[in-house]
Amino acid sequence: MEQRKPVILISNDDGITAPGIRALVEAVKDLGRVVVVAPDSPQSGMGHAITIGDPLRLHRSDIFDGVESWECSGTPADCVKLARDKILHEKPDLCLSGINHGPNHSINVIYSGTMSAAMEAAIEGIPSAGISLFNFAHDADFSVAAAVARIVAIKMLGQKMPPHTLLNVNIPNVTAATYKGMKICRQAYARWEEQFDSRKDPRGKDYYWMVGKFMNMDEGTGTDVEALSDGYASVVPVTIDFTNYTTKSWLEQEWAGSNE
Amino acid sequence: MEQRKPVILISNDDGITAPGIRALVEAVKDLGRVVVVAPDSPQSGMGHAITIGDPLRLHRSDIFDGVESWECSGTPADCVKLARDKILHEKPDLCLSGINHGPNHSINVIYSGTMSAAMEAAIEGIPSAGISLFNFAHDADFSVAAAVARIVAIKMLGQKMPPHTLLNVNIPNVTAATYKGMKICRQAYARWEEQFDSRKDPRGKDYYWMVGKFMNMDEGTGTDVEALSDGYASVVPVTIDFTNYTTKSWLEQEWAGSNE
Repeated sequence: MEQRKPVILISNDDGITAPGIRALVEAVKDLGRVVVVAPDSPQSGMGHAITIGDPLRLHRSDIFDGVESWECSGTPADCVKLARDKILHEKPDLCLSGINHGPNHSINVIYSGTMSAAMEAAIEGIPSAGISLFNFAHDADFSVAAAVARIVAIKMLGQKMPPHTLLNVNIPNVTAATYKGMKICRQAYARWEEQFDSRKDPRGKDYYWMVGKFMNMDEGTGTDVEALSDGYASVVPVTIDFTNYTTKSWLEQEWAGSNE
Repeated sequence: MEQRKPVILISNDDGITAPGIRALVEAVKDLGRVVVVAPDSPQSGMGHAITIGDPLRLHRSDIFDGVESWECSGTPADCVKLARDKILHEKPDLCLSGINHGPNHSINVIYSGTMSAAMEAAIEGIPSAGISLFNFAHDADFSVAAAVARIVAIKMLGQKMPPHTLLNVNIPNVTAATYKGMKICRQAYARWEEQFDSRKDPRGKDYYWMVGKFMNMDEGTGTDVEALSDGYASVVPVTIDFTNYTTKSWLEQEWAGSNE
């Protein structure tokens, strides 16, 4: 009796030609039927954007040898939505997004196109993980990150995951020799302190470039930022229920009766 | 001794000329110093996108009588970031986003530009609320929603809110006579079932329009979807810590030891 091969959907936000997605495809392509649906251009910082006011395009690509792949004119979340309806016609067993050039730890989960593809899959009930490497260089070495992605994929395919499992996996910029392993973490409380760089265009008008300074405000332990700085890969399970139950209890007490 | 007037930052995702933001400005402009920083064009479905690859523009606007206002070329999240650094030079006491044409209940919080402005403020420690009306019509009557927004603003300015308070407020499409009040809710588990409408362009090539069907999969009570269908305004406190602590415990047990 032949076992059905698991279907693995791969996307990213750096675009289909980025080296990170190639490393990811190579790392997992023997684990099942891999299908790539990725943006045709970089989509970094797109958060969970979806395209509702413009039509979407989808083109077959042949850039991955022996792996079905498509490039899409939309955002990472669009890619996952389109893959499900127009390409796979079935629910994949796993969705992987990445490998991103640059980390998506802590609050970056909310700005990240990489994580938005994974989140879209999780909303649809597909176990998923976003994989990001703490290295912005275009010639970054993805080998450790690819090995971690493979371990994560094998684990996620090998057991029944909790409903709507969505993992935010970040890999430190280390070599195989200095890599310490994975740590299950919570999201650090951190934010970007924006300073906008003001400039004048050739017509004398002001414009601004966003330049942010990352601020880790978290003084506790067990965070993704801490794990990464200690040389571990951080694995943060991410929720799709955004209710703040602590504040909900507070409001129920404080605002009761006065609302109607 | 003169009391300092609270500073209220207002943004939205439908753009600065939308009737919803006008209704919001009118509803709260006597509660403090109101400053509007809103996109110069509609940004619906932008999720928590930020603009990192393009410069941003900011122009003074005079469309609100007696209220300082600015239009920005970026996303709702960009507006809040720029407002803080280039316009206010101080932390506002409250950020309001909306009033959106159309609801942002349940999972829509993640796709919503309206909520992304409010979420950006909450990340920065500014108490904030996104306000949305369950009515897509351009000539929608915002009067009930504006009254609710005013109540929420007065409450949020009048007491010390928990850290990073972020409220997702949705108002049903009712009249003042049939409006039942506010309910503190949790986010319903729901999703969009996408079907992409396939078409051929004049050159015979395929393109796709996203058309989704909203599916409420939540069988429990106390959700925002339930409150809205019962004629209440729903108030869901939203977290900025996206860690799924239940799955975290599961992973700590199931994946322990095997990671290193």
